Amino acid sequence: MIAGLHVVIPAGGAGTRLWPLSRAHRPKFLLDPTGAGRSLLQQTWDRALPLCGPERVMVVTGRTHADAVAAQLPGLAPGRLVAEPAPRDSMAAVGVAALLIHAEDPDAVVASLPADHVITDQDALAAALAQAAAAARTGDLVTVGITATAPSSAYGWIETGPSLQLAHAAPDARRVVRFVEKPDPPTAAAFLASGRHHWNAGIFVARADVLLGHLAGLQPRLSEGLRTAADAWVRGDAPALERVWPTLTRIAVDHAIAEPVAAAGGMAVVPAELGWSDLGDFASLAALLPERDGLRVLGRHGDVQAIDATGLVMTHDGRTVTLLGVDDVVVVDTPDAVLVTTREHAQRIRECVERWREQGRDDLL
Amino acid sequence: MIAGLHVVIPAGGAGTRLWPLSRAHRPKFLLDPTGAGRSLLQQTWDRALPLCGPERVMVVTGRTHADAVAAQLPGLAPGRLVAEPAPRDSMAAVGVAALLIHAEDPDAVVASLPADHVITDQDALAAALAQAAAAARTGDLVTVGITATAPSSAYGWIETGPSLQLAHAAPDARRVVRFVEKPDPPTAAAFLASGRHHWNAGIFVARADVLLGHLAGLQPRLSEGLRTAADAWVRGDAPALERVWPTLTRIAVDHAIAEPVAAAGGMAVVPAELGWSDLGDFASLAALLPERDGLRVLGRHGDVQAIDATGLVMTHDGRTVTLLGVDDVVVVDTPDAVLVTTREHAQRIRECVERWREQGRDDLL
Repeated sequence: MIAGLHVVIPAGGAGTRLWPLSRAHRPKFLLDPTGAGRSLLQQTWDRALPLCGPERVMVVTGRTHADAVAAQLPGLAPGRLVAEPAPRDSMAAVGVAALLIHAEDPDAVVASLPADHVITDQDALAAALAQAAAAARTGDLVTVGITATAPSSAYGWIETGPSLQLAHAAPDARRVVRFVEKPDPPTAAAFLASGRHHWNAGIFVARADVLLGHLAGLQPRLSEGLRTAADAWVRGDAPALERVWPTLTRIAVDHAIAEPVAAAGGMAVVPAELGWSDLGDFASLAALLPERDGLRVLGRHGDVQAIDATGLVMTHDGRTVTLLGVDDVVVVDTPDAVLVTTREHAQRIRECVERWREQGRDDLL
Repeated sequence: MIAGLHVVIPAGGAGTRLWPLSRAHRPKFLLDPTGAGRSLLQQTWDRALPLCGPERVMVVTGRTHADAVAAQLPGLAPGRLVAEPAPRDSMAAVGVAALLIHAEDPDAVVASLPADHVITDQDALAAALAQAAAAARTGDLVTVGITATAPSSAYGWIETGPSLQLAHAAPDARRVVRFVEKPDPPTAAAFLASGRHHWNAGIFVARADVLLGHLAGLQPRLSEGLRTAADAWVRGDAPALERVWPTLTRIAVDHAIAEPVAAAGGMAVVPAELGWSDLGDFASLAALLPERDGLRVLGRHGDVQAIDATGLVMTHDGRTVTLLGVDDVVVVDTPDAVLVTTREHAQRIRECVERWREQGRDDLL
């Protein structure tokens, strides 16, 4: 347990690049794409519990997913599931949670953990968050920086500065110099070589009052709207919530507060190796599955036959997939849609989803 | 109508290279792989009718497929469906049919037409068979030679000699010099260039007495066995049929009589352009389907989405297939099996079927 810590899990985002596995009605966080036996949301919950206990975990999700979230997390405490009338990006979700938590516990430290990532090293996460919470108590906005292992142009990077000199409580905490989103390949290679750059995993830790202060200063209109929304939520005033929610600024925590606070010198980072993956596309998902003769299978190995073929195959319900003479292919079989692509094109799956949308096939989205 | 002509349709062969579309329980001849609206067997029946009328069409098929054949061909006359206790290749099927037909009509000319090919030019077929029947009446064993359009190493070729000089009745009929099965690519290229070589489409025409004479001379044991089988069939003596059938030599018409008769100078060929395809694999099937931006679809075009992708897609029951960044791919979606390969590997699909068999997945065969 980390003293004073509350965990917020903003459970949003469709995970379109994992289509047709992920769908609008069954988004990535509700899925178990690696066959772990628990959905990504449940795994996030499992990680949060030992850090703060069930009473201090709050999930913020879209109203359409609230029932599914409640079903997946029977241990969620009463009032700890906030249903957004519509998606307004992560700052609204984290902001309303911070307001609700701050009203109950003015000294709270809030850690926001994405609902749809994989983290395999729970001890490392607990240690990193303990340091992050300690740094947050000094008034900093804190993030966890993932030790980079590849010159990725797909991730956001965090450039670190000098140590915060918080010897015992947070020995690894450093000042954040700046965030760099999706650098070009040479820059990414230079970042990887430097050892001073880490991946941004979207984990933010701050005292609730500090977070709300930044929000009020940097996004006053959003801050005001969120106060109205939080009041409406507490009173159970659905019409009021319905009125104010669509007016909230659609912005991510990164852009709303992390980047400007970093620029002003108020942001810290705790570097850590967490066994982290954002499962951003089928290529990163494939990397988490065991390989056998170049083949990775999600589903039953016995349902897949590969001759002179490599890649990733997902089957379901006993349907079989046979590959012959295809390399580095991605085949995802679902009840109504089969996707055939290659790992190289995994980032472009959004285009397929867009095409189906243009053709009015909302049933497939 | 061609005077004295009887058509035999040996309906056997699984069409393994069209798996998973074709299966043991639903072989190629029962399917409609080009979306024509009629199965290949029904199309063969439709072509036979104007040549000889419904009373003179006989279908020989495996006992396990007899019900399906009868259901697909309600116009088949009584006694014209012969059910083999087990597959013994085409000579047994054509031979037993020739015996049954000869017993009823000693002057019959028999034309054997494969049940699972595509022929689009019915008039050309009728004209070629009329010439073939005329040549057959002189005592020759006759085949139809398809005008070659590619240097194929997958087909059997027929080398032609001088004209038979049957001016009016069969002006195109020529002597067969020899059959060459699956020539190497340089040989196939030379054949194509020569203009004297044609593809063997497995169509044979002969007087029943001539065919049976060759059979008795070249395969006496098989001939004897077939006489026993035909007698048993006529008497409805199932146990006798059951006893003799498994003892019959397993051999194709080509090897049993066509090749030796050609070597002895008794074989003629009528060259023709029939719009013929043996639909031997997905590559030859693809060639028959209309192309749109490099994509050929069997099923509903609206169920297929292709981005930077080309190839052949088969869908069913409204399931969708999405291709992204894959070239010349073959995707066949069926209720229990999806196949992903490329046109280049289409000939090797048998290996996949073998693998499934080795793993005890007879349900997929």
